[in-house]
Amino acid sequence: MSTTVIILAAGKGTRMRSQLPKVLQPLAGKPLLGHVIQTAKQLQAQRIITIFGHGGSTVQETFKQEKIEWVEQAEQLGTGHAVQMTLPVLPHDGFSLILYGDVPLVTSETLEKLLEASQNTGIGMITLNVVNTTGYGRIVRKNQKVQAIVEHKDASEEQRQITEINTGIYCVENRKLHEWLPKLSNANSQGEYYLTDIVAMAVADGLEIASIQPALDFEVEGINDRIQLASLERAFQQQQAFNLMRNGVAFADPARFDLRGSVTTGQDVYIDINVILEGHCEIGSNVEIGAGCILKDARIASNTKIQPYSVIDHAIVGEKVIIGPFARLRPGTELADEVHIGNFVEVKNSRLEKGVKANHFTYLGDSEVGATSNIGAGTITCNYDGVNKHKTIIGESAFIGSNSSLVAPLSIGKGATIGAGSVITRDVPENTLAFERSQQIEKANYQRPQKTK
Amino acid sequence: MSTTVIILAAGKGTRMRSQLPKVLQPLAGKPLLGHVIQTAKQLQAQRIITIFGHGGSTVQETFKQEKIEWVEQAEQLGTGHAVQMTLPVLPHDGFSLILYGDVPLVTSETLEKLLEASQNTGIGMITLNVVNTTGYGRIVRKNQKVQAIVEHKDASEEQRQITEINTGIYCVENRKLHEWLPKLSNANSQGEYYLTDIVAMAVADGLEIASIQPALDFEVEGINDRIQLASLERAFQQQQAFNLMRNGVAFADPARFDLRGSVTTGQDVYIDINVILEGHCEIGSNVEIGAGCILKDARIASNTKIQPYSVIDHAIVGEKVIIGPFARLRPGTELADEVHIGNFVEVKNSRLEKGVKANHFTYLGDSEVGATSNIGAGTITCNYDGVNKHKTIIGESAFIGSNSSLVAPLSIGKGATIGAGSVITRDVPENTLAFERSQQIEKANYQRPQKTK
Amino acid sequence: MSTTVIILAAGKGTRMRSQLPKVLQPLAGKPLLGHVIQTAKQLQAQRIITIFGHGGSTVQETFKQEKIEWVEQAEQLGTGHAVQMTLPVLPHDGFSLILYGDVPLVTSETLEKLLEASQNTGIGMITLNVVNTTGYGRIVRKNQKVQAIVEHKDASEEQRQITEINTGIYCVENRKLHEWLPKLSNANSQGEYYLTDIVAMAVADGLEIASIQPALDFEVEGINDRIQLASLERAFQQQQAFNLMRNGVAFADPARFDLRGSVTTGQDVYIDINVILEGHCEIGSNVEIGAGCILKDARIASNTKIQPYSVIDHAIVGEKVIIGPFARLRPGTELADEVHIGNFVEVKNSRLEKGVKANHFTYLGDSEVGATSNIGAGTITCNYDGVNKHKTIIGESAFIGSNSSLVAPLSIGKGATIGAGSVITRDVPENTLAFERSQQIEKANYQRPQKTK
Repeated sequence: MSTTVIILAAGKGTRMRSQLPKVLQPLAGKPLLGHVIQTAKQLQAQRIITIFGHGGSTVQETFKQEKIEWVEQAEQLGTGHAVQMTLPVLPHDGFSLILYGDVPLVTSETLEKLLEASQNTGIGMITLNVVNTTGYGRIVRKNQKVQAIVEHKDASEEQRQITEINTGIYCVENRKLHEWLPKLSNANSQGEYYLTDIVAMAVADGLEIASIQPALDFEVEGINDRIQLASLERAFQQQQAFNLMRNGVAFADPARFDLRGSVTTGQDVYIDINVILEGHCEIGSNVEIGAGCILKDARIASNTKIQPYSVIDHAIVGEKVIIGPFARLRPGTELADEVHIGNFVEVKNSRLEKGVKANHFTYLGDSEVGATSNIGAGTITCNYDGVNKHKTIIGESAFIGSNSSLVAPLSIGKGATIGAGSVITRDVPENTLAFERSQQIEKANYQRPQKTK
Repeated sequence: MSTTVIILAAGKGTRMRSQLPKVLQPLAGKPLLGHVIQTAKQLQAQRIITIFGHGGSTVQETFKQEKIEWVEQAEQLGTGHAVQMTLPVLPHDGFSLILYGDVPLVTSETLEKLLEASQNTGIGMITLNVVNTTGYGRIVRKNQKVQAIVEHKDASEEQRQITEINTGIYCVENRKLHEWLPKLSNANSQGEYYLTDIVAMAVADGLEIASIQPALDFEVEGINDRIQLASLERAFQQQQAFNLMRNGVAFADPARFDLRGSVTTGQDVYIDINVILEGHCEIGSNVEIGAGCILKDARIASNTKIQPYSVIDHAIVGEKVIIGPFARLRPGTELADEVHIGNFVEVKNSRLEKGVKANHFTYLGDSEVGATSNIGAGTITCNYDGVNKHKTIIGESAFIGSNSSLVAPLSIGKGATIGAGSVITRDVPENTLAFERSQQIEKANYQRPQKTK
Repeated sequence: MSTTVIILAAGKGTRMRSQLPKVLQPLAGKPLLGHVIQTAKQLQAQRIITIFGHGGSTVQETFKQEKIEWVEQAEQLGTGHAVQMTLPVLPHDGFSLILYGDVPLVTSETLEKLLEASQNTGIGMITLNVVNTTGYGRIVRKNQKVQAIVEHKDASEEQRQITEINTGIYCVENRKLHEWLPKLSNANSQGEYYLTDIVAMAVADGLEIASIQPALDFEVEGINDRIQLASLERAFQQQQAFNLMRNGVAFADPARFDLRGSVTTGQDVYIDINVILEGHCEIGSNVEIGAGCILKDARIASNTKIQPYSVIDHAIVGEKVIIGPFARLRPGTELADEVHIGNFVEVKNSRLEKGVKANHFTYLGDSEVGATSNIGAGTITCNYDGVNKHKTIIGESAFIGSNSSLVAPLSIGKGATIGAGSVITRDVPENTLAFERSQQIEKANYQRPQKTK
């Protein structure tokens, strides 16, 4: 069966009060529309047709790497009008799923259920039972079968008691869409073409309307303002935390966790409060992530402990590594097994071999450090001369004294020792002590400066 | 019409278990009583009369800059007794709003509604419908009209079903207060004078009691212990976050946000988790505030990005600036446009011109740095000689090598270059390289220290 | 009366998806079973008999310092079978409380109530009224008296309406256990021996079953998966925060607080968002703990202010001390009164006397610093020579210039002054200025490096 996904993404989203088109607002780090497109791809839809309007070029630009057909809805004349725009490109066979760029979290599992349910009837929809029905179109049934969708304002007192509502998500045979959509009328108080009217047409044609409900209510929740967006973000984040817990991740507080992307986890991962994961992270078994850590596109091997307030971005970390607190690993960092990175240490574009220790106040940039070397507190690789970046190579078992400045390009041989506070500008051979230091001078009975009036 | 605001603020607040009088306990960074005084000022009340008791001098001291008349209630003999204390100074014309120092969040909008509703009747009150009525005085009505307030313990079974309760907030004609208050009796089980009794007097006088309800329940919530205080704090913080979202601010999690003061925001401001804003902050458009940032009295221009765990206090920040993570801007910091402040950098009482970069481990104190200058990692302005602070002036396009110590007072000319690890004690002319360094010395086959037994 | 506590701790906890046995999963920083053992000790139980199974050796190892009798349940044949295992060691006099290693939070107060209630009847149990009863055994009563426990699947429609459920916690006379347990049968659909069956035996013997309910629902909540564990963690943390608030602690947000251990607090302690306390902490009066601080086994005297993002571990801090933001105190740190520790400062195994200031970028390790000394920004005690740690002793009123490297072992006399950027390797006498510095050299019209192609 050939499946087309139609996504309505033309709304302006005035209530977001944003320069950004509504469907580009991020949820869990990804644009709303991006969630829908990802779901369409999971469904292996043959075609994805997206109807754009406000901010169209920005929207198209954002998804230019996706295989999407773009259809413009220049005027906003209703949901039916929007889908009409697709008719010139819409195939005549197969089914279409009609989705919304601002209803981001419907799952492929739910949509597959809808597709299946619609096979025999030619049309199906997702409905939902809710407590607070105000404003929603009610599903009127007779002998279980959907008879009509009645808008809230048009509903009788009795119909208003109905708790099953219309979500707007449909699955329809494309030949029916070609038949029904041209017949939509805007002869209503809003002067708009309503997609909802195809339900009446189907019933008039004697078709039964298949219907399913989503596994989770938030799948069909739409976003109109920032309060709704924040609320859906939290519901989704909770869901993500729960899924990770089901897979064996331990959380100190699942309500204080944010996953803005994806993550794979080993066994017995512990995540303390206020951790944020971004991009794609891979976390091995028995990894502890301390309070307030932020990881982005990080790969952390097993038995590693990341202490609180560490910020890690595009780094690869080995096993039994200890990091932080207050450590920062910037892109291009590779830490081999058993490395120790302590407080107020920054590493960028550097590889540290097994067992290297840099425990305090250190900047390692564009460097390679050999196994078991010890980098003293306050060591700085002076990798930048104002225009170019240079490399610092430190051999294994080196000992770099505290407060050293290593002026790159520089090579320090294995087993070398650097005296504290030295500025090292020349390569240091293996097993050599190098230092740069003057005589210590003393003046007895020194008079301190006086307080200026 | 002349409006007087009477604030009852004499309670001890034993259940707070604090040295601080209850009305001085902070909510959203401001004393409870301060919220009520602010509301009174928004109402442009002609007079604010505050009844103090426990901790009176501390309370008066706290608000000594406010135009408030203080009236002492030496003994705590009930709410009616408290308002009686105001009679010697209470005008005879106009109306009084009777508020409470421990009911901090009633809004001026609600009170204006109450004032208006009370104009024709001479007396009005705020009531509330609640689910759990235990302990509250019930509003007994007949033909819609308030007949009496019946205390919970005195209420019949039927009256206990009433869900409309007394909040204690009244608006009364002053000439009525002068008439009724002296007639209050303490002939009750508690031996107290109840303000509530004026309602019965008004009904006895054939007056109708106007009543209104607040827009939000928490407006009339009172504070007796720290659990209630924390609960009201969170309700208020949520409300503040919701108001900001309605104005277009995006939150990762509105439940993890604290505004302890006021803020103005441009369009498309993004606030990540656990941000705290204190004092008065001004935030331009497209500003991103990263997780865990704390801003106090900060002015941040548009398109600036503040990365996680940055602490900013009394600083002015230009456009397109990048700050953090782990940056600290202390009072007197001014960053012009496009400045970059990186990790573990502290700036105090300094102005950095356009495009200056200080990306790692730097302390800039009492300094001026010219445009596009680069401050290397580990640079420290030695601004303090033990008794006095001195200035460091760095011209534009200067390059300060890493680990430099700039001993103030010091002036470094534009285009100057400082060699890494130098201690600079003498002014450096323009376009000059200055450094302080000894020969690098090497000793081959160096024997490291041995492990002490 | 002699009390035995029997703890069932043999479950595997497959749904935790963990290498760790379920009863060792931590809640509030302590293994589940540890909570139960602590409660047993509060009850001054004469004997604690713990039934182990899966992961037994790890479990026993964890509690090897506790006075516990371990009994193995090799096969998991039901709760009755588990308690049967204790018969060989179970005394014949006194009562047993039957508890569960995965029901961690039952309090000693509740159990004392149960013990007392069971004295006359010989058997008592804890029941609970719940809203969602699905899956629970119902308490069938007649004339108030417990008649039977009916499992959910065996319950009639009428019985399913019962909201009082079985928690599984019993108090039974030991001679009854010796009588009843051998008579348990596994002739049921699961082929298991149910402890519950002793209730029927007691009723058959004409005994009345005493019953009590816990003060808080979560006391009887059991843990089967990580979602339940996280949920119980939050309920417990909230409870802890509420208890602290009742004792006068002020919280910015009690939902963002974690106590993983114990704490004593003085009056008017303020705890900002996202604070974590671990181990045993002692906090004096008027102490402020800023956002995101993490304290472990810390002792903080009165009137001290800990600014945000400070991490303190095994440290003793005096009065009127100011710490942070971004400070780290490691084990062995002692700060006398009025010490100031500023941003990006690390202290380890050091004692700082009264009034010492170390305000920026400093590492003090294995040191003693005399009163009122000032440690300049960027100062590093070079305490490690690659194999041994050495001490740095600084006298009172010393002034250490910025960016100094103090190469230990080193003694700096009182009143001494160290010039900025010096590497000090030799002891410095009292009142002496010491520095290590070369001439400042300048090269005019310096040509910067060019951009490499």
